[in-house]
Amino acid sequence: VALTGEDRLIGWLRARLGPGALPGDDAALLPEGAYAATVDSQIEGVHFPVGLDPAVVARRLLAVNLSDLAAMGADPAFGLLALAAPSGFDHRRFFRAFTGACRAHRVELAGGDLATSHGPLVATLTLLGTHPAGSRWLRRDGARAGHALWLGGPVGNSAAGQRLAAAGGRRDARRRTTLPHGWDLHAKTLQEAARQALRRHLLPEPQLALGAWLRRQPEGGAIDVSDGLARDLHRLCRESGTGARIDHAALPLPRPDLCRELSVSPDELALAGGEDYVLLFTLPEGIAVPPVFGSRRIGRMTGGKAVLLERQGRAAPLSDRGFDHLAGSKA
Amino acid sequence: VALTGEDRLIGWLRARLGPGALPGDDAALLPEGAYAATVDSQIEGVHFPVGLDPAVVARRLLAVNLSDLAAMGADPAFGLLALAAPSGFDHRRFFRAFTGACRAHRVELAGGDLATSHGPLVATLTLLGTHPAGSRWLRRDGARAGHALWLGGPVGNSAAGQRLAAAGGRRDARRRTTLPHGWDLHAKTLQEAARQALRRHLLPEPQLALGAWLRRQPEGGAIDVSDGLARDLHRLCRESGTGARIDHAALPLPRPDLCRELSVSPDELALAGGEDYVLLFTLPEGIAVPPVFGSRRIGRMTGGKAVLLERQGRAAPLSDRGFDHLAGSKA
Repeated sequence: VALTGEDRLIGWLRARLGPGALPGDDAALLPEGAYAATVDSQIEGVHFPVGLDPAVVARRLLAVNLSDLAAMGADPAFGLLALAAPSGFDHRRFFRAFTGACRAHRVELAGGDLATSHGPLVATLTLLGTHPAGSRWLRRDGARAGHALWLGGPVGNSAAGQRLAAAGGRRDARRRTTLPHGWDLHAKTLQEAARQALRRHLLPEPQLALGAWLRRQPEGGAIDVSDGLARDLHRLCRESGTGARIDHAALPLPRPDLCRELSVSPDELALAGGEDYVLLFTLPEGIAVPPVFGSRRIGRMTGGKAVLLERQGRAAPLSDRGFDHLAGSKA
Repeated sequence: VALTGEDRLIGWLRARLGPGALPGDDAALLPEGAYAATVDSQIEGVHFPVGLDPAVVARRLLAVNLSDLAAMGADPAFGLLALAAPSGFDHRRFFRAFTGACRAHRVELAGGDLATSHGPLVATLTLLGTHPAGSRWLRRDGARAGHALWLGGPVGNSAAGQRLAAAGGRRDARRRTTLPHGWDLHAKTLQEAARQALRRHLLPEPQLALGAWLRRQPEGGAIDVSDGLARDLHRLCRESGTGARIDHAALPLPRPDLCRELSVSPDELALAGGEDYVLLFTLPEGIAVPPVFGSRRIGRMTGGKAVLLERQGRAAPLSDRGFDHLAGSKA
């Protein structure tokens, strides 16, 4: 499998630092198991469009980091924020939203570093999470051959939202959505799908309750889908030493009319899109996820190392970049 | 006292978040006192010059954060790194130096986030520190009227080094120093002073051993001098509810010939310069700091709130920006 630059660098670092360093999980477990710790940055022009409402940036920053804790089955506890903002940045608008979202998720802001940068806005959040005594942490290496493979929510809509944002679509913290130029001419249902995609991209909802439920199950692996379903499934398989087989018919794909309008296939958005921030997890067969979590079974974990996509009875290798050899569609 | 933008924002945040949030220390103490946590960013073009050797950036990033732990009397334990680097950045050179420096300081790199940015290099490090059972954390609110005021090392040389770096001076990780254009014509002793200033600015040495010694003393407050002696002394006084009186003759000032060449007064560099990363601390009178730590007594803590600079028997208010009313020199 071709690794991304980051995966390659992490492999190199692990070799350099020795086993145990930089564990391949969404968050690091500190010794004695007291905390799971994670760090993620949000960079203007990279992770979100230039000029995005600072309140939305704040909420997105927290959500993306909370998703890492959700994938560990952790409850958020403390946050440390570093903000490198260009002059003129509306700090108060950012912090009003950030502190409000922290309160809602019971994150105590424990420290920070605020600097003025000549470059784009770069917001970095470190989160520490805890979990109740007696429950387990969720890990990427917890999947076993024979487990059912589950997806915590739809994939691909965030990638659709990203394309809409690149074309000028916005959503602010007052729930006002602006669609790209020309989209007001489309059918109302398509406009509504576009609004939902924008919201999902700019304001993802971390699946903390699902993670808290999963940590009470006897076994199973978990990861949050941040870099595309295909890539993150490969990571889950690599860390667990298993293969996987996905049933294409079970995948919760984006709406075809939305994809057509964006000139992209539903498969490409769903498999290679990224930034969905839903959990991808495994459970022993026979354990059903409560419907409230909106999860669906999309396949199963297998022996060996092959990651396969099954469509109309035929299975083909799914590359970590989402390339589907069977369909021949670059995804 | 005029507060900096960051101090003002932190005051606003504290009012918003309630007491206990965003404590005014160099690092936050997590509940149950297991960890002191700190975060600091290094931004290209803001904290270090564009084009600086990535290995020096890496070591500076770690040193600046370690200084916060030193000011708490903490032993470094874990780090989480977020790196937003422009394409073409030499990640391996950065990480070779970073992991080597982490090993030397017993920092375990527990997690990271690597992203490609279109802007300048922004490196953010979160550090967690511990300390031995039975010792105390150092705090900014630990100073008492009557304590002696100590400084862990010279101040102002880093600010001199910053001016040299702005003029093109550099030091790389192979200990090669480049002085700005024309400096090769100066006297050898002045060149050597300039090299030392560059080194102190680009590669500060966190005073972890001093912090570990201080935490074993019965009382006293501490802060690291990152924003200038005047400003950080004001912070120490504000958090402790004391005043202070500095003896000008006791200040370890930069060399006059270096200052002359940089067209700046020794006082301005020492009082308002910043990024010295030496500890400013207080101890009960009668406790002497072992000479190995290179510290010197520069004054004493007083009742009231006045922060005074005493020179030739006359005392004048020292503003938090380093302005010395007596001398009339804007610093």
